[in-house]
Amino acid sequence: MESAKDFKKVVDTISTLLDEICFEVSEEGIKASAMDPSHVALVSLEIPSLAFEEFTADEHEIGIDLEAFKKVMNRAKSKDKLILELDEEKNKLNIIFENTGKRKFSLALLDLSASSVKVPDIEYPNVVVIKGEAFKEALKDADLFSDYVILKVENDKFLIQAKGDLNDFSAEFEKDDAAIVNLEVGEEAKSAFNLDYLMDMVKGVSSGDIIKIYLGNDMPLKMEYSLAGVNLTFLLAPRIEG
Amino acid sequence: MESAKDFKKVVDTISTLLDEICFEVSEEGIKASAMDPSHVALVSLEIPSLAFEEFTADEHEIGIDLEAFKKVMNRAKSKDKLILELDEEKNKLNIIFENTGKRKFSLALLDLSASSVKVPDIEYPNVVVIKGEAFKEALKDADLFSDYVILKVENDKFLIQAKGDLNDFSAEFEKDDAAIVNLEVGEEAKSAFNLDYLMDMVKGVSSGDIIKIYLGNDMPLKMEYSLAGVNLTFLLAPRIEG
Amino acid sequence: MESAKDFKKVVDTISTLLDEICFEVSEEGIKASAMDPSHVALVSLEIPSLAFEEFTADEHEIGIDLEAFKKVMNRAKSKDKLILELDEEKNKLNIIFENTGKRKFSLALLDLSASSVKVPDIEYPNVVVIKGEAFKEALKDADLFSDYVILKVENDKFLIQAKGDLNDFSAEFEKDDAAIVNLEVGEEAKSAFNLDYLMDMVKGVSSGDIIKIYLGNDMPLKMEYSLAGVNLTFLLAPRIEG
Repeated sequence: MESAKDFKKVVDTISTLLDEICFEVSEEGIKASAMDPSHVALVSLEIPSLAFEEFTADEHEIGIDLEAFKKVMNRAKSKDKLILELDEEKNKLNIIFENTGKRKFSLALLDLSASSVKVPDIEYPNVVVIKGEAFKEALKDADLFSDYVILKVENDKFLIQAKGDLNDFSAEFEKDDAAIVNLEVGEEAKSAFNLDYLMDMVKGVSSGDIIKIYLGNDMPLKMEYSLAGVNLTFLLAPRIEG
Repeated sequence: MESAKDFKKVVDTISTLLDEICFEVSEEGIKASAMDPSHVALVSLEIPSLAFEEFTADEHEIGIDLEAFKKVMNRAKSKDKLILELDEEKNKLNIIFENTGKRKFSLALLDLSASSVKVPDIEYPNVVVIKGEAFKEALKDADLFSDYVILKVENDKFLIQAKGDLNDFSAEFEKDDAAIVNLEVGEEAKSAFNLDYLMDMVKGVSSGDIIKIYLGNDMPLKMEYSLAGVNLTFLLAPRIEG
Repeated sequence: MESAKDFKKVVDTISTLLDEICFEVSEEGIKASAMDPSHVALVSLEIPSLAFEEFTADEHEIGIDLEAFKKVMNRAKSKDKLILELDEEKNKLNIIFENTGKRKFSLALLDLSASSVKVPDIEYPNVVVIKGEAFKEALKDADLFSDYVILKVENDKFLIQAKGDLNDFSAEFEKDDAAIVNLEVGEEAKSAFNLDYLMDMVKGVSSGDIIKIYLGNDMPLKMEYSLAGVNLTFLLAPRIEG
């Protein structure tokens, strides 16, 4: 892979939601999906072989401790090239950074099998395509006053609301605001979501990234975006209000 | 207001000294003054209506919790425009950041009345006009060795001194040093001040800001400077030496 | 000295290894050497008079508390000029930063006498000249998995290895890698060293600095580099493996 530093953001994001993951490797690329330990969020990723400068692989399942993977990826420096290499004999994944020299980290594999959870193929009435940073900042704003957030679609607007004991927050994005790339509203919708999970899901998002948010009443939120050629999909169950 | 980020420095500075404040709003602008909880320092600010791109206001007294105000202002991003809006019905102050979308924070008002303390109109024998950063850095230097600082004016010099148990610090600014904009010396003066208060008072000062310091023997220190079109004045009682 | 900020890196480095030091001043410059408190590492420095813009000195021994010296040097700003001045009468070292004004720190001298330890004049079979940052980063990499590191020279390669309970690290620098300036291999060598000490020794190293590493079997590691005109030499005893 051309840039180890870009891939680092992917690992950073999934490692905040998951402790371990089983990568399913095939000729077409790498994919994985898993529920978070509390079964509130589903994380799914797909790395097409084209995201790699060079890709040679048989079918394999590779179980990885994400805490260790994150620690290693955090050592990536700009201009480091990333090589992922399975050492079947030693049962290790080699993570190699190539730059002015060669640095090789060998991670012990975990004995995991591929998860059977998949992102269900549901149609959503509303789709919000928004600049990732605008969404991420609005979530951090909401975090000042509450630990959950209400996402609303109505009258060609996308709203992010938080209610504290004394103080409130509300972000409003209209169809022609600079932050909105596209806004397809099929029906009014309003759901509450846990703010920590949402912020974890957009952790690796930075300026220039675009997020696709699918919303419906009583439906899990679906979120999609790409980081460094990796397609990430998240599902988050709505918060049941008392 | 054109720049939310500049105004943030003002709120940052006053919120380190005060817990809450009552803004007095009139057609001419906004003003407020208050003693800090321990009654050692007086903070006074004036925002002329001209500091705003647009200003419409009746007479109002607006009581604000500065901790909450600071948390909100810390969410300001560069290029965010700032709108302050009183919602009389809900008894809230709306703080709105406009940029690629609209983010609105609503703060509950406190039931405060305007303070009667004012900056007394005294003449000072000495006035030091100094680059804010040079003064701020010298205070941080002094903080290595002591928790109070001696400010001295003598022989066309401005001195900042700190005495520790083992080690000492002294900064010396002469009339023609680059850090000095102007130095009017009427009589020699020497007073000790609490360093924490002084550092709090210059918290929002950054490169390019100019500070006016008024000094006399047995007189409180008076300090004036402008941040983002806001005129700030501070008074600090001298430390009584044992 | 032209740049206080550069000299700060020197003090930063030696103060992590030593608590106090006795500078031996003479017409030729300043030198000092000392063992760390646990007697595992030797630190030696030499500041030739030429490293100073101006240098006037008699013979003196100046005992300094390095914690205080570091705190003062950390106050250096870019463009600050550094003046070191012995005040024999008050028994203090004055550290003066000159820029838009003059800031003077006076440190109490300690009653130390010059250390008799010297870097022994031994011939080493192997010399690795490497870009400081590449070496420093590889040590930080190794630190993920272990608290000691194996340095190896073999087949025209310089290797840095760390073995954790589950995961391993290995950096490999070949003769023609961009990180290697020169690699003189006389005989294969392999020794283990404490990682904390090694990282402390390269603390002040930044992009552009070059490190000279001397290695032999059952020999202490010797390391040399220059920071801001100061020649630093370190010796580190190998770790005895159980």
